Amino acid sequence: MIIMKKEATQKQITHVASEVKRHGLRPAISEGKFRTVIGLIGDESQISFTHLATLPGVKEVKTIETLHKLINCEYSELFYGKGENSTIKMGGIEIGGNEPIFIAGPCAIESRKQLFRIAEEIKMAKAHILRGGIFKPRSSVHSFQGLGALGPEEAEEALSWLRDAGKSFDMPVMTEVRGESQVDLIAEYADILQIGARNMYDQDLLSKVARKGKPVLLKRHFGASIEEFLSFSEYIAAEGNKDIILCERGIVPVGKGKSLTRYTLDLAAVPVVQKETYLPIMVDPSHATGRRDLIFNMSCAAIAAGASGLLIEVHYNPAEALVDAEQMITPEELKRIIIASKRIHKVVIDKN
Amino acid sequence: MIIMKKEATQKQITHVASEVKRHGLRPAISEGKFRTVIGLIGDESQISFTHLATLPGVKEVKTIETLHKLINCEYSELFYGKGENSTIKMGGIEIGGNEPIFIAGPCAIESRKQLFRIAEEIKMAKAHILRGGIFKPRSSVHSFQGLGALGPEEAEEALSWLRDAGKSFDMPVMTEVRGESQVDLIAEYADILQIGARNMYDQDLLSKVARKGKPVLLKRHFGASIEEFLSFSEYIAAEGNKDIILCERGIVPVGKGKSLTRYTLDLAAVPVVQKETYLPIMVDPSHATGRRDLIFNMSCAAIAAGASGLLIEVHYNPAEALVDAEQMITPEELKRIIIASKRIHKVVIDKN
Amino acid sequence: MIIMKKEATQKQITHVASEVKRHGLRPAISEGKFRTVIGLIGDESQISFTHLATLPGVKEVKTIETLHKLINCEYSELFYGKGENSTIKMGGIEIGGNEPIFIAGPCAIESRKQLFRIAEEIKMAKAHILRGGIFKPRSSVHSFQGLGALGPEEAEEALSWLRDAGKSFDMPVMTEVRGESQVDLIAEYADILQIGARNMYDQDLLSKVARKGKPVLLKRHFGASIEEFLSFSEYIAAEGNKDIILCERGIVPVGKGKSLTRYTLDLAAVPVVQKETYLPIMVDPSHATGRRDLIFNMSCAAIAAGASGLLIEVHYNPAEALVDAEQMITPEELKRIIIASKRIHKVVIDKN
Amino acid sequence: MIIMKKEATQKQITHVASEVKRHGLRPAISEGKFRTVIGLIGDESQISFTHLATLPGVKEVKTIETLHKLINCEYSELFYGKGENSTIKMGGIEIGGNEPIFIAGPCAIESRKQLFRIAEEIKMAKAHILRGGIFKPRSSVHSFQGLGALGPEEAEEALSWLRDAGKSFDMPVMTEVRGESQVDLIAEYADILQIGARNMYDQDLLSKVARKGKPVLLKRHFGASIEEFLSFSEYIAAEGNKDIILCERGIVPVGKGKSLTRYTLDLAAVPVVQKETYLPIMVDPSHATGRRDLIFNMSCAAIAAGASGLLIEVHYNPAEALVDAEQMITPEELKRIIIASKRIHKVVIDKN
Repeated sequence: MIIMKKEATQKQITHVASEVKRHGLRPAISEGKFRTVIGLIGDESQISFTHLATLPGVKEVKTIETLHKLINCEYSELFYGKGENSTIKMGGIEIGGNEPIFIAGPCAIESRKQLFRIAEEIKMAKAHILRGGIFKPRSSVHSFQGLGALGPEEAEEALSWLRDAGKSFDMPVMTEVRGESQVDLIAEYADILQIGARNMYDQDLLSKVARKGKPVLLKRHFGASIEEFLSFSEYIAAEGNKDIILCERGIVPVGKGKSLTRYTLDLAAVPVVQKETYLPIMVDPSHATGRRDLIFNMSCAAIAAGASGLLIEVHYNPAEALVDAEQMITPEELKRIIIASKRIHKVVIDKN
Repeated sequence: MIIMKKEATQKQITHVASEVKRHGLRPAISEGKFRTVIGLIGDESQISFTHLATLPGVKEVKTIETLHKLINCEYSELFYGKGENSTIKMGGIEIGGNEPIFIAGPCAIESRKQLFRIAEEIKMAKAHILRGGIFKPRSSVHSFQGLGALGPEEAEEALSWLRDAGKSFDMPVMTEVRGESQVDLIAEYADILQIGARNMYDQDLLSKVARKGKPVLLKRHFGASIEEFLSFSEYIAAEGNKDIILCERGIVPVGKGKSLTRYTLDLAAVPVVQKETYLPIMVDPSHATGRRDLIFNMSCAAIAAGASGLLIEVHYNPAEALVDAEQMITPEELKRIIIASKRIHKVVIDKN
Repeated sequence: MIIMKKEATQKQITHVASEVKRHGLRPAISEGKFRTVIGLIGDESQISFTHLATLPGVKEVKTIETLHKLINCEYSELFYGKGENSTIKMGGIEIGGNEPIFIAGPCAIESRKQLFRIAEEIKMAKAHILRGGIFKPRSSVHSFQGLGALGPEEAEEALSWLRDAGKSFDMPVMTEVRGESQVDLIAEYADILQIGARNMYDQDLLSKVARKGKPVLLKRHFGASIEEFLSFSEYIAAEGNKDIILCERGIVPVGKGKSLTRYTLDLAAVPVVQKETYLPIMVDPSHATGRRDLIFNMSCAAIAAGASGLLIEVHYNPAEALVDAEQMITPEELKRIIIASKRIHKVVIDKN
Repeated sequence: MIIMKKEATQKQITHVASEVKRHGLRPAISEGKFRTVIGLIGDESQISFTHLATLPGVKEVKTIETLHKLINCEYSELFYGKGENSTIKMGGIEIGGNEPIFIAGPCAIESRKQLFRIAEEIKMAKAHILRGGIFKPRSSVHSFQGLGALGPEEAEEALSWLRDAGKSFDMPVMTEVRGESQVDLIAEYADILQIGARNMYDQDLLSKVARKGKPVLLKRHFGASIEEFLSFSEYIAAEGNKDIILCERGIVPVGKGKSLTRYTLDLAAVPVVQKETYLPIMVDPSHATGRRDLIFNMSCAAIAAGASGLLIEVHYNPAEALVDAEQMITPEELKRIIIASKRIHKVVIDKN
């Protein structure tokens, strides 16, 4: 990690970056409020830190002993100044800011009409961002895989519905990118690119998505330790994309017999991630529990644990949803959750 | 499960119970607000349900298909009337009632002076119940095992401090029973008998403790599914003791590398247990996280998830605690937690 | 699942397939030794089974109630005749046949010289297939990612070494495909395409690799239940590719403290998979344990559990390996393992 | 750990032990083939190592940095001489010696006749030790808890059958101790005292059983890391009882959906424990898998992993067993397993 002087010139920064490249590493240049910091990506044993420290414009060369160097708090302090976290601003919304953010919508987009109706209803419930699945990751090849599976034209049409619904109801939109071949198309339509839990370990996908330069929401894999979660989000940061939103959505259940929840929601991951990195972290209680009757409680708990927001699956008629019907809630229930969440957020913020 | 008529006489109840015994089963007689219900403990194939249904005073014989029959909600409805949960009242406190209850104190009692100072400070912070360990379960035989390990006299002396501190500051007291040989002694001094997570599967201990007739706080083993947790708490109910307080304190971490929390706090267990049983459930964020810096967040989250209260380890000088120093918080921090918890509890209750 | 009559004509088969397509499903046509079977991929509610049953050449239409229909044993019986498993034949080797198969080589290919030396030494140790990583999945973006990360030319050069080493020492070769963009290139050079544990859930990659028509070795994700493992291997079968080799390589460790092995090798998965499917299953003790000193024991145990073979990482000088040095064994140790494995295999086979 | 000189006198040893006691620790005196070693149990900060090192007869004072000091290999080397493991000899059998040992019998003893018939049949199959449950730990209070639950007389009668069956067929006998109140009674009848997985963390029970001075078989709890397993077996060693047989019987399953085996058999625990301690370790494939059709494979795998023997549940008519019917095998199957195991054991031993 090379920390440039406040007064370092663009030319000096470029020179340092080219020196880094010359030794076979990649420079990750971050222009902060206070100064520019250049992260080193690759095998650091190939380069002399003493040499780097003597280049013009360089203030200091620091080693950060962790797998997640680019997103960690120490780095944040260098870069933004003490204690300030990174927030992501878009369309009047600030993710990681002073208010919890609510991302809602159907698990799978089924039709233009379904999507618009849900968009309108979640907007009235005060949700901020619209989500809807087009390329659905499914455990079984024999299940409905989303409209994206029907062909490129159907996929693009569904994407245009999503974009239009967002515009109509003044909400940024998010959808999931499941494979590398979908990245270019989806990036044309969505404001936030979601990488689902099943793909968290897919580093080629992470890199390709990151290079689009748009905010990325990365869900924790249900088999991943927090350390691995952070280590893989570093693949996004390594492409120079710091607009990363992390999302806890439950880890594999342990224990004998059938689990009474789909996954184990690990809410302690929220404050732990906040202490380790400068990134915002949200929670998805829908996939974690897989049970409609637990969403209210676990939403409140997530906000109380300090989450920057929630991802909740909503349908005006949960019973008829094509995917994950048993975990959908109604817009009315969403409204109750948002109201309670905001009140709880205030209580928690007071202390900190 | 034999449901007696409202007007059933004591004689009829006794007769039914003796019929149950005659067939090799044990009757668990529960006298509710509305009617008496007799649970059957043992191999039900030994008895004819038709025969039972025709005994005088019997309204109905019902089969409940679950491992935890005696503590489940359906039973509760029969017994208490629709939707009413069991609460445990003691010394002006109601566990499982309208207010969250806070149990606090040192992990291990070290001296009379230490205990009285902590008792005074947690009382000022508005805690309700005092806890302190005398027989400490430890992973290593080479670690400090609590004052109880020094001998019977030292154990009794420490127990008398606990009783006296409770009286001095007007709080019921709780301490852990780790082995069968400690049950009689501890039951003389403590108001609530705690069975620790490590002993959850120790059915002989559960039965013996239950027979004392005092409220029992049972912690979930870190390797137990929720189903097993409930199934083992049934060992307490089977002795006719319904004053059971369940406690979630984290399950084994999964995943590669060193976990960033000691255990995984499974907060979804709170609403799940509440839907399955009529028992109150509390949360212990101290042992679950093992990290002082996470206690505030996870306490708020637990209350938001619907917990009936919290168990928190407190020391006026955390650094000098003999056991679990890194997870102790100060009385000041406890006070902040109690204030925030009460506010969050109100938000959550509003909905339900 | 449509079972055709033995005497069904090609025309009849094509007609049935086109009927399946007309209803929005995909037909998976498998020509067996005895008869042709057509699996249905997609939403089966869209098609009338009665209609299908009356088409010319159709013997029977059967529903198989499982997530892994195409690879399961019942299907195998229809297709191959009672009890016969699918085997994969290549270059004089039969995977899933009467002899255990040994796949060995370096974790990462470092140079032509390194690869050829290892190839020669494992051949002398009686290994059957050469493996070597070019696109290495790594937990940290800051670690060595294999020669493939240096650029397309370097990747192709490394692939040509692999192909050449295979030819020189008369062994089929296998390497890992980590991202969709690598599929076409690797399929030109490798005989078996490996999908690593981290990518098991990446259904787009699975489908793309499967369509190459070459044998695919799929490793179980460390967070996957056996059911999910089989359910995702079905994505390969759904492309008409039945040359699937499954591989157990350990699941996430559970429990407090640092695990003494990298993952938990779940050897019971071997007989379980053999009872559920007709696919061969191998074991990778190297990644599962992460410890050189456990490879011999766990290799023997895997073969005793019934595995069709082993994947073992080998280096002539383990200490200097760039990746996973601590789990590499020497060719001499490999030889001892192969000798012991063959003897154990004989003992186990005797019974069955 | 105090290592005495070879020529140290009994008086010197007694003196050192009394010095240890004087400082509030307990001495664990082990008289080895070569020398006496005195372990320190308790808080070592209370004693000066320099002072101990200067006492007459003391060769050296060593610190062993691990939770399992008394059972570890380094200690074994001091005590027995290089590389020699501890074995347990009884009635012509050597556990941990050159031959694998087979412990077999019914899950629960149902009658004298049932037990004698099984004892005879397993003896003919070449099993070495007879086991049978009298006090059965059960997940549900409503399940059959073994004959021990019927009362003290029935328990003693069942114990006498076990002792008599052992004598009749010349096999040592083992049964499970589930609670502290059963220790004295069982120790009068059984040759090996078994502590079940559910009780592994019950340190009071471990200590009380250990003090009987008979060999103890301790099963790993399904929620325990290997480190915890060893750390709790140290509670037995701390009572001066080194005749400890460890037993791996599966850990909690992880992952979504219903597990296809009851627990995950962690066979790598076998070589890991052998590298960490000098204790023999056996494997129980019956409880680990819960499936009769997997016992043969997992038994072979356990022996191949290096296990010192197996615990297998056997019934002449598995279908009619009162407990765990689905995991019982017949004596004929046991015979096949013993024959295969002995052959595999020879292959594995050859290498080491």
